Amino acid sequence: MRRVLLTGATGFVGGACIAALRERDYSVHTVSTRSGITADGVTIWPGDLLDTARLPMLIQEIAPECLLHAAWDVSHGSYWSAPSNLDWLAATATLLSAFQAAGGRRAVGVGTCAEYGWSCDIYQEFTAPLRPATCYGMSKLAAYHGFQALAELGVSTAWARLFYPLGPGEQCGRLLPSVINRLMTNQPADCTAGTQLRDFMYIDDVGAALAALLDSDIAGPVNVGSGVGTAVRDVILQAADYIGRRDLIRLDALPMRLGDPNALVADVRRLTEEVGFHPSISIETAIERTVDYWAQRHAALCSASRSFRWS
Amino acid sequence: MRRVLLTGATGFVGGACIAALRERDYSVHTVSTRSGITADGVTIWPGDLLDTARLPMLIQEIAPECLLHAAWDVSHGSYWSAPSNLDWLAATATLLSAFQAAGGRRAVGVGTCAEYGWSCDIYQEFTAPLRPATCYGMSKLAAYHGFQALAELGVSTAWARLFYPLGPGEQCGRLLPSVINRLMTNQPADCTAGTQLRDFMYIDDVGAALAALLDSDIAGPVNVGSGVGTAVRDVILQAADYIGRRDLIRLDALPMRLGDPNALVADVRRLTEEVGFHPSISIETAIERTVDYWAQRHAALCSASRSFRWS
Repeated sequence: MRRVLLTGATGFVGGACIAALRERDYSVHTVSTRSGITADGVTIWPGDLLDTARLPMLIQEIAPECLLHAAWDVSHGSYWSAPSNLDWLAATATLLSAFQAAGGRRAVGVGTCAEYGWSCDIYQEFTAPLRPATCYGMSKLAAYHGFQALAELGVSTAWARLFYPLGPGEQCGRLLPSVINRLMTNQPADCTAGTQLRDFMYIDDVGAALAALLDSDIAGPVNVGSGVGTAVRDVILQAADYIGRRDLIRLDALPMRLGDPNALVADVRRLTEEVGFHPSISIETAIERTVDYWAQRHAALCSASRSFRWS
Repeated sequence: MRRVLLTGATGFVGGACIAALRERDYSVHTVSTRSGITADGVTIWPGDLLDTARLPMLIQEIAPECLLHAAWDVSHGSYWSAPSNLDWLAATATLLSAFQAAGGRRAVGVGTCAEYGWSCDIYQEFTAPLRPATCYGMSKLAAYHGFQALAELGVSTAWARLFYPLGPGEQCGRLLPSVINRLMTNQPADCTAGTQLRDFMYIDDVGAALAALLDSDIAGPVNVGSGVGTAVRDVILQAADYIGRRDLIRLDALPMRLGDPNALVADVRRLTEEVGFHPSISIETAIERTVDYWAQRHAALCSASRSFRWS
């Protein structure tokens, strides 16, 4: 069994990789600052990726053959322009150096469509301009070049550029969870016109795509998306219909965000033709599962607060 | 007086910045692992830039308003593909994060023409492709994007892409010093045909250009070169003539290096028109001063070994 160090295993993207990695017969290891956490079949090493002084010794001890680096600060509302982006860049470079020194063979990093200059509609890895407009996008692009430097040291590397993952576990403040949670608590949801096209992919498919990419020898940047643009309003309205509260959706109540592009869709030929990966969950199923997830959480919350009140 | 943290102050490029910074009324501070070193008018803080755990506290203590980051591993013969490039990337990202946290206002980083894809003859900062072919070039390009990320956090930043600095203090193994030292010890110097054009700049001019860039509010990448391409053979032959040993130069004795471009010349319009900097030392004077420097070192070495023998 090949040993993979999966960073960010407790996060939205990293967490979705665990099952896919295990299916491909990887022995999954992670580093976490949280004590006492467990995850099925994951070996947890107590430590802090941001503690760059201790990181090299920890990596030496874990001795991973493979690396899937999904950890980063993506705190909703702040991560686009957080100083922590530079700390995560430092942690990433330290991790790559330590991984190489410990004999690592294959590394995949998690990047973002925000590395591109948003001037196209469809983004191809080698032709779309790399001209990020945010601190987050620039730091991820810097990390991408760090992975490229690692490749020059003889480690096989690839870099996944994620578009719009959605599904259970996405942070509350992000678009779909926030709309769902407004509707489930009978509050109106103010939205933009929602005509902008985005490339959504169900989070389990994202995890499976990352595992497939790690398990290949494809090098360089690879978009991880569906290749299909869906209007944001269609996602919102479908969720609302599934909940039965289309009446609470207020399209056009908010102005479009300045600089928000009309379309952000991945060219997925590398992912489908070279990696051989095809997503298996439709956008409709993805939205239903996301609504079901939040419905369960609300139900659990209600029953928890009832038992609290009555006990 | 503005306080500048100059990293790499004991190196070839950093050392050349000291006088130029002092002339512009900066108070110059540096971090060094070497104990007991002194440099005129430079405050030396004992510490290690690669000790990323302690670096933030040290930067907090130094509290620099400005940063000129010239430190990197450029050990001749190994730096193009050394794993230490990733460590310097990590140190750079840590430094930038700490500089921002400590209230830093203006930062200039030292990059390289090796960040470009060597497919042009003349390289313009915004139109030449950023497609490095080496671990060193990729890591410097990653650091450039780190500086760009820092700019998004409200710190004024620029990034100097150095072409071919030459002058006293250049590492022994590099082209001009190695030819000079062969000739001064009466040994033949095997060279390529030397027809390739390179953009040379005297090291004191490089230091002055970096100080001028720091002292401006120009943002983004700025080439630091003369804008003139000189054939490598002309540099070699001029040094040989000045020494009086043209007979020892064997042009065409070595094959051209694979992938070595015919021309590597900076478009210097940003440096001359926006920064307002013009080099003051001709290539002829630069070569003579370099030869004189090595002649003095050889003389000092001879007199030292003589006094050793006779004492």
